[in-house]
Amino acid sequence: MLIGGKREARRAYGLDELALAPGTIAVDPADAQIALEIGPLTFDIPVMASAMDGAVDVGMAITMGRLGGLAVLNGEGLQTRYETPEEIISQIVAEPMESVIPLIQKLYREPVKEELIARRVREIKEGGGVACLSFTPLGVKYVAVAVEAGADAIVIQSSATTSKFQSSKGSDFDLSEICSKCPVPVIIGNCCTYDGALTIMEAGAAAVLVGVGPGAACTTRRVLGLGVPQGTAIADCAAARDDYQAKSGRYVPIIADGGLRTGGDVCKAIACGADGVMMGQPIASTHEAPGRGHHWGMATSSAGLPRGTRIKVGQNASLEQVLYGPATSDNGTMNFIGALKLGMGSCGATTLKEMQQVEILVAPALQTEGKRQQFDQHVGQGK
Amino acid sequence: MLIGGKREARRAYGLDELALAPGTIAVDPADAQIALEIGPLTFDIPVMASAMDGAVDVGMAITMGRLGGLAVLNGEGLQTRYETPEEIISQIVAEPMESVIPLIQKLYREPVKEELIARRVREIKEGGGVACLSFTPLGVKYVAVAVEAGADAIVIQSSATTSKFQSSKGSDFDLSEICSKCPVPVIIGNCCTYDGALTIMEAGAAAVLVGVGPGAACTTRRVLGLGVPQGTAIADCAAARDDYQAKSGRYVPIIADGGLRTGGDVCKAIACGADGVMMGQPIASTHEAPGRGHHWGMATSSAGLPRGTRIKVGQNASLEQVLYGPATSDNGTMNFIGALKLGMGSCGATTLKEMQQVEILVAPALQTEGKRQQFDQHVGQGK
Amino acid sequence: MLIGGKREARRAYGLDELALAPGTIAVDPADAQIALEIGPLTFDIPVMASAMDGAVDVGMAITMGRLGGLAVLNGEGLQTRYETPEEIISQIVAEPMESVIPLIQKLYREPVKEELIARRVREIKEGGGVACLSFTPLGVKYVAVAVEAGADAIVIQSSATTSKFQSSKGSDFDLSEICSKCPVPVIIGNCCTYDGALTIMEAGAAAVLVGVGPGAACTTRRVLGLGVPQGTAIADCAAARDDYQAKSGRYVPIIADGGLRTGGDVCKAIACGADGVMMGQPIASTHEAPGRGHHWGMATSSAGLPRGTRIKVGQNASLEQVLYGPATSDNGTMNFIGALKLGMGSCGATTLKEMQQVEILVAPALQTEGKRQQFDQHVGQGK
Amino acid sequence: MLIGGKREARRAYGLDELALAPGTIAVDPADAQIALEIGPLTFDIPVMASAMDGAVDVGMAITMGRLGGLAVLNGEGLQTRYETPEEIISQIVAEPMESVIPLIQKLYREPVKEELIARRVREIKEGGGVACLSFTPLGVKYVAVAVEAGADAIVIQSSATTSKFQSSKGSDFDLSEICSKCPVPVIIGNCCTYDGALTIMEAGAAAVLVGVGPGAACTTRRVLGLGVPQGTAIADCAAARDDYQAKSGRYVPIIADGGLRTGGDVCKAIACGADGVMMGQPIASTHEAPGRGHHWGMATSSAGLPRGTRIKVGQNASLEQVLYGPATSDNGTMNFIGALKLGMGSCGATTLKEMQQVEILVAPALQTEGKRQQFDQHVGQGK
Repeated sequence: MLIGGKREARRAYGLDELALAPGTIAVDPADAQIALEIGPLTFDIPVMASAMDGAVDVGMAITMGRLGGLAVLNGEGLQTRYETPEEIISQIVAEPMESVIPLIQKLYREPVKEELIARRVREIKEGGGVACLSFTPLGVKYVAVAVEAGADAIVIQSSATTSKFQSSKGSDFDLSEICSKCPVPVIIGNCCTYDGALTIMEAGAAAVLVGVGPGAACTTRRVLGLGVPQGTAIADCAAARDDYQAKSGRYVPIIADGGLRTGGDVCKAIACGADGVMMGQPIASTHEAPGRGHHWGMATSSAGLPRGTRIKVGQNASLEQVLYGPATSDNGTMNFIGALKLGMGSCGATTLKEMQQVEILVAPALQTEGKRQQFDQHVGQGK
Repeated sequence: MLIGGKREARRAYGLDELALAPGTIAVDPADAQIALEIGPLTFDIPVMASAMDGAVDVGMAITMGRLGGLAVLNGEGLQTRYETPEEIISQIVAEPMESVIPLIQKLYREPVKEELIARRVREIKEGGGVACLSFTPLGVKYVAVAVEAGADAIVIQSSATTSKFQSSKGSDFDLSEICSKCPVPVIIGNCCTYDGALTIMEAGAAAVLVGVGPGAACTTRRVLGLGVPQGTAIADCAAARDDYQAKSGRYVPIIADGGLRTGGDVCKAIACGADGVMMGQPIASTHEAPGRGHHWGMATSSAGLPRGTRIKVGQNASLEQVLYGPATSDNGTMNFIGALKLGMGSCGATTLKEMQQVEILVAPALQTEGKRQQFDQHVGQGK
Repeated sequence: MLIGGKREARRAYGLDELALAPGTIAVDPADAQIALEIGPLTFDIPVMASAMDGAVDVGMAITMGRLGGLAVLNGEGLQTRYETPEEIISQIVAEPMESVIPLIQKLYREPVKEELIARRVREIKEGGGVACLSFTPLGVKYVAVAVEAGADAIVIQSSATTSKFQSSKGSDFDLSEICSKCPVPVIIGNCCTYDGALTIMEAGAAAVLVGVGPGAACTTRRVLGLGVPQGTAIADCAAARDDYQAKSGRYVPIIADGGLRTGGDVCKAIACGADGVMMGQPIASTHEAPGRGHHWGMATSSAGLPRGTRIKVGQNASLEQVLYGPATSDNGTMNFIGALKLGMGSCGATTLKEMQQVEILVAPALQTEGKRQQFDQHVGQGK
Repeated sequence: MLIGGKREARRAYGLDELALAPGTIAVDPADAQIALEIGPLTFDIPVMASAMDGAVDVGMAITMGRLGGLAVLNGEGLQTRYETPEEIISQIVAEPMESVIPLIQKLYREPVKEELIARRVREIKEGGGVACLSFTPLGVKYVAVAVEAGADAIVIQSSATTSKFQSSKGSDFDLSEICSKCPVPVIIGNCCTYDGALTIMEAGAAAVLVGVGPGAACTTRRVLGLGVPQGTAIADCAAARDDYQAKSGRYVPIIADGGLRTGGDVCKAIACGADGVMMGQPIASTHEAPGRGHHWGMATSSAGLPRGTRIKVGQNASLEQVLYGPATSDNGTMNFIGALKLGMGSCGATTLKEMQQVEILVAPALQTEGKRQQFDQHVGQGK
């Protein structure tokens, strides 16, 4: 559509604007096949935990592995900057809201220690977990340390990662080189466009993280104007995945990352084309999470342009209950796997690939509901 | 419309987004013909009460019958699990909000008793009411008991019911068989798509309940991502009804169920194509309702994925006043029949079939109004 | 657009969704020509005061006439039911909110007295005002009394008035007959569609009131589902006016009635095609208004289906200041005439007919602004 | 689109409805070229401070010049009406909200003194700043004084400025004459349409201010109905700039003015086609701002139709920190230049001209987010 002059823009859709139509035939949720394959690794459930210091530590990585998913440990976060990150987290949790961003900025100025990277990998492996650490494009120098210590997979992640970076200083990095040298799968993100996903796949990524500017704890869109609503981002990147597979024969799964908070969000992300989801807030709200009921984004510590602040989410249930239920609330934040399987069953999908084909509606229901509630109050008060 | 990649989605409309245009000729509301026929049964008013335990008990079924409508008793709810459900309801009403869902889950684990099914049917019949009990697809085994005890109609209802259910365990059920064996009309739902409604009609339903994920007490869309805004759902299912009638000669009425709270909602549901409406919250808010001013959804008791919680609605008027007025408030929640007749008259419709043809507008008025109020406050406070 | 099945609906626009583009050439606001002609009557300003008992009494009619506009007195309201309506209004103002609608219903059950109709007309005339009384279609029997007493114009008004009313009781009324027999101009409304406006013009109306379900004090859309957003309603009825003029040679002005609260609303109503505006709340908020800072709709007193309740608006300024300024607030509720003239000047329009041609944009600005504010608070609180 | 009858309207987009897609290649933010040229003047950063008395005084003009931008001093504001404007500002800041507009109206009735115009210009020049004063079209008589005193640039600004003004009193002014006579660049605004921008360029403007009715402190749209959402306004005026350059060979930069509050807004304004931005509230919230944490619009003092009132913004950071960071909050209101450079880098733009070509999405994200939050609260409270 034309927004003015000769300037075109495309309408993009957030998951909140979408809904799924039930199928004509329902299938038994118990038959739902939901495993996620990333390179040679197979996970029982298509759920990853975000590399946020409030969500994932060594213990979470071990527990998540036991429960069938994949938790990513921040390779440049508190766990690899401090011997005893628990104390640091206590400081962050205790800080008044108005000064928490400067405190986080300060605490993340402590250098990353290669020794700690290796130690965290070993701790996870010793606990029987899947060791997956994330690094920024500028921190790829740490990949070798993590791999040598036994990491099972590597994540290269920034707010918006591209396969090429042009600089007059000649400090280009090359994702292809990283992928080809790394003996374990490299998951790369975040991207949110067809071209962005395609070039990351062509660089050799084992999986692609999709999501720029869609999440509640991420203010990329406000600070930089950047962002693509998640429904459109997933569908675009899924098209890139399919085209890339047709060309190369290699299937690179798409992981929806950002802004997913309910079972409905998970179902809709898959329906838009995702092969799996990465979640932060729901993981951070578990009893096992290191953030003690709080989390903050990876860009909160940015020295010049912090994005996302400390969010209080409480500690509401065990990870097992959050993933597998039973839910004791109706707000959609527990029993994600049960919800995914029931959603698939209701839509008539047995596999995730079938779920990627179910009918989607543009259905601004929450909005209308909210308005209505507002109007009810308005009328109720006689104003 | 394309939401991304090759993924198409269709825009769906909620009733809140719609408004009706007055007709060029008005007709006398007193002339409005609004009877609803379901199989051999005829009801004076096209209003059904939802099979929610906070809304319908034996007394409500009798009163509703006397007033011309049809109240459905939950055949797998508190009335058929407990001898004295009043005590159980007292517990639910007294429970603090944060623990009410686990309590409801626990209380609904008490088994359904066939003896109580039969007794409730008899009590309704003895009171002169229309006995209509609802069962889930998994509870169809109880249908025979209810029919034998004298039930006038049966409802088979779940959040999203399909005519077929595929399972590796071979536990398929067959709605056709149920309908063909049952000597009284079988009302089936809920569905929300053309194909879904058509297959239910083809299975032999006497009426179809339309509505998945549109209601305030139902969080299906949030928990599972499932749902179709009610305006579109009704219009789609009405098209299936018309096509089915053209093919089979049998007219299967469409009952809009979910999210209807005002006279305007009723008028708009009919205008979209419904033959009748089913309501929960308005019935639960009557003096006669068993929930003492509270209600909860049929899926609130779900062991793994509860949807909908206890909603406080108060007890504001008698059922007669809610249905027939006079209204003593301007919020549209009283005198539904008066509103329907006046709405029909203003639109120039004498029959419900004519009302199904009046002009509809997409008119996001509440939204704008709400915003405006917000802006007024903003300006008024000088912020 | 298709909302589902074969059901079509048309998108309609409220004034809040519209904005006007400035012209390339500006004209001097002092040159703006804004007179309104209704039959043989000419008013200096295109502003009418609604026939609401909180807004218009004899004094208001006189003051409004002196200031160049037209205030309509409710011919079936408190002024013609009670000798001393001030006392009745005091009761309404003092009543607690929860019981005010039943009180209003009760107070309006007092019969209308023909003697009082004649007396009010005479009082207005003696004060030098323009005497215009409104009656409902069922109250047309009072027209003769008002005319005989010297009324200058008559308004026939209901929530939704049509030229024909079909009833099995044969109680049809005929607007044509009323218009042809009445020696003074008959203003008829409300309507909101092309066909509705056209048939009212063909019946002989001297002016047409446009607006069903668009106003804050009117809950027609909620109670009955009826309503057309005002921008579309005005544009449709203006098209009927133009077509009717082309056919008959007679120009019947369109008066936008309902939901107009700011100078921007007035400018936009004219730009959509209106020849004048009718306002309730802004008039009710003047020092001169009988409602002492409160108003209620004409349908609030409906015995069966009250619509609109008592709204508190305060008494903020004199009528003169509300119409002609100076404004002492920036919320657009004062100096309507100054705003209209400046708006016309900025759009390059010298006459109302030119203003009806300026560029309109669909511009959901208040909405976005509101949201943004909400988001600001969200971020500001660090939640 | 047709809004009704034969009335067409065009959908216009606000910046809040837009988002930018990251590029496939990222570039080093340090390489971003962001200088703004206005006639013979070059500014290191494309940021202008609005001529609001709460934002810009002599000291701010000097500081802004030192930091690379351009602050405009209101040539008809408190600085040129009063010897010691600090005292007057103290009065405004201390006034209760309900009476602040009448106070501002009164204080601005004090005449403008030519002596003070010249003195403010000299003070800025003596401090090493860039002296740029703004006048209304009716105040162009003061331009000569300012130029004679050494002004580097002149701004001619009103809510909606056109190149021609028609009046029966013959008081036409001619922007062409002003531009041709003035020896320093004349920046003219505000406009918001293709034709409006084009005629201002043809009149000889050195730069064009774009924005009518888009800002939070400006209630032009509410009071007059006038306004074009900023995304569309910028894109339309940018098209006029390009067409004008193609015809005349002269490049006239477009400055987006109004409603810009975050780094994201700045990035999106440039992406829509702007060459620079003018900001009020962010400047008024600096330690150096004369308003002591408050600001008010240029039209707040309007005698008949005040628009915009006193807004409290606090004094949160130094101008240097607001422009260049580091940000200590994640709400996007600090480090505008860092945000612009990082946004450009993420979009793959090295120059502002490249940034004007990046992919734009229509992405109503804040809205959905807000709604969702609302719904969360709704569910959380169990209502």
